[in-house]
Amino acid sequence: MKSSDKIKSLFGIYNNEVEEEIKNLLDSQSGFLMYKMMSYFLGFLDENSQPINSYGGKRFRPGLCLMIAEMYGKRKEALEVAAAIEIYHNFTLIHDDIEDNDPLRRGRPTVWKIWGINHGINTGDAQLILANLELSKIADREAMIFPILSNFLNKKFLEVVEGQFLDFTLADLPLDDEFVSEENYLMMIRNKTSVLVGAAAKAAGIISGVDDREQKSLWEYGVNLGLAFQLQDDLLSIWSDSGQTSKTKENDSYEKETLPMLKLYDTSEQTGKIKANDIYEKKKTLPIIRLYETIDQDKKIELMQIYSQKRRLSDAEVGQVINWLNSSDAHEYTRDKLKYYKDKSRLSVDKLSVGDGDKSKLLEVIDALLPDLK
Amino acid sequence: MKSSDKIKSLFGIYNNEVEEEIKNLLDSQSGFLMYKMMSYFLGFLDENSQPINSYGGKRFRPGLCLMIAEMYGKRKEALEVAAAIEIYHNFTLIHDDIEDNDPLRRGRPTVWKIWGINHGINTGDAQLILANLELSKIADREAMIFPILSNFLNKKFLEVVEGQFLDFTLADLPLDDEFVSEENYLMMIRNKTSVLVGAAAKAAGIISGVDDREQKSLWEYGVNLGLAFQLQDDLLSIWSDSGQTSKTKENDSYEKETLPMLKLYDTSEQTGKIKANDIYEKKKTLPIIRLYETIDQDKKIELMQIYSQKRRLSDAEVGQVINWLNSSDAHEYTRDKLKYYKDKSRLSVDKLSVGDGDKSKLLEVIDALLPDLK
Repeated sequence: MKSSDKIKSLFGIYNNEVEEEIKNLLDSQSGFLMYKMMSYFLGFLDENSQPINSYGGKRFRPGLCLMIAEMYGKRKEALEVAAAIEIYHNFTLIHDDIEDNDPLRRGRPTVWKIWGINHGINTGDAQLILANLELSKIADREAMIFPILSNFLNKKFLEVVEGQFLDFTLADLPLDDEFVSEENYLMMIRNKTSVLVGAAAKAAGIISGVDDREQKSLWEYGVNLGLAFQLQDDLLSIWSDSGQTSKTKENDSYEKETLPMLKLYDTSEQTGKIKANDIYEKKKTLPIIRLYETIDQDKKIELMQIYSQKRRLSDAEVGQVINWLNSSDAHEYTRDKLKYYKDKSRLSVDKLSVGDGDKSKLLEVIDALLPDLK
Repeated sequence: MKSSDKIKSLFGIYNNEVEEEIKNLLDSQSGFLMYKMMSYFLGFLDENSQPINSYGGKRFRPGLCLMIAEMYGKRKEALEVAAAIEIYHNFTLIHDDIEDNDPLRRGRPTVWKIWGINHGINTGDAQLILANLELSKIADREAMIFPILSNFLNKKFLEVVEGQFLDFTLADLPLDDEFVSEENYLMMIRNKTSVLVGAAAKAAGIISGVDDREQKSLWEYGVNLGLAFQLQDDLLSIWSDSGQTSKTKENDSYEKETLPMLKLYDTSEQTGKIKANDIYEKKKTLPIIRLYETIDQDKKIELMQIYSQKRRLSDAEVGQVINWLNSSDAHEYTRDKLKYYKDKSRLSVDKLSVGDGDKSKLLEVIDALLPDLK
């Protein structure tokens, strides 16, 4: 089975209930256009507020949350938590599209592109608040758990925004700045991408009432899966023949989904992806940081100069960088890191109290998201 | 005593504890520059992250919250709630400055002006989340009250964002659009400005454990005070000799504070305020809506044409509009509305269970914020 089909069969079964829950939340608000903008972005409406069923992301985070809660017999109880995480995730994307000046997301015009930057900022703000309102639905039912979940999730939400801050910071600094390091790059992708995957897994444990040790293993499972996934994305953005990644042609942020990640490796559906786009965009991803750390002094200066250009790089510059990358251990080094986090995620599964069938399912998720690179 | 001194003497005594609480929250985060941007905006740091003590707003909302909680013997217990409201309020201002393209707030460069729009959006997002994290501090102490307060405040936070949405919407529509009505204008200022004043008052009641009826009176007190205050601002922005209002030269949003509201009516400290600025900016405030509704048909068309200009209005156009306003009942009509909400706020005080001294204090707040217009 193809990677994309595996992911669909693993998570697709949770999509309906998450989407219904979010639709109900949005329908229960005032009829202001602001809420239609959210529905548009989530794929429920077209830009004239007419119902459609457009691709609104893979719903991986809420799917993972519900899948894990189901293992503890709490699928139904986890619905609001899963929905809140998906609402939050999509809020980050609405603002990210403004920040990256991206006109398209999932093949459709972005919120700011249709309604302007002010509405984009403001609608995103409202959606962030709605994530908390969705979560607060559990308070009556789960009086003891609600404050714990609220505090935990808001802390993780804050870390995601810190990840975005770090991304801006790394993008603005020259390659030779001491802040541009493997450590800080990993901190950035951890916060920006992985934390919310870890949060989805751990929140499922919290709502299910599992103990701290089990929660910790769930967190480790998700956060390491997220890290490995982002590193895979970084590798594919440079070395994949088709340039297929979850990114758009624009900046990588919060794991872009213009080409659905579901289509990863699905060569029959390639469209408009640019090979080595991360290099053209001078993204300081791990392969580049590793290259810069290990390359000869004279080439280091040249590389630094190329990465100090204000403009998008030329084909010749990109070719030069790729030659250097291929003569270095950057690919191998990044793959080793990817494998390190993938293994950590796998090891966390062993520590869980769930049955063998459920463990296999969690390992399947890892394999579906992280097929071996060719 | 001058209005500004009255306000200072009523609320200044709460400033220190609120500011210490917010400083502690920010200091307990990572050292990322993002948090220094918040401290800068709040007046705790300069733009090089050096400690200063700059004017950071009148802290009216947290002051009102603490003053009311104190009447119920719960001043200390209300601190986190008051701080969360102030943190939220200042988040709205950070985003509002971007949306209005305002370079200055409270006489200092805005966050986006110093660090760019992306950091402005992102830092605001983080600050909104911090409002919830500040609030969640009470969960251990007030297990029963926390979910109620969290749900109540997030609903009010959402209404503030809806107010901003309505403001964009009214600004974009022509004067003859049926949506541009007194009703929708009042809904806009209610959400954008008054709701958070009402929320500060009611939240004080919730944390103090008063009954629903008392909470309702507190809400009515705050929300009507906020409405009257905004209408006063609208009047002053057109008719005050000095043009002194709480607004900047730019768009009015979330009650601008470049010239501290504390200095309202303090003619010795006038600087850079433009008379009739709301007219130059073609703001569709209540006096203009009233004028449009009551003016002769031929002038109505002329007024509509003036207000359809994309550019800032000329002195001649502003003069014409002011002549029409002065020949109409727009001022009187708006004053009557102001008085209506002021009286409603006063009447709510009567319904409270607090002692006569406390009632006098709440009435003093009304009089300090709403001195009779000359």
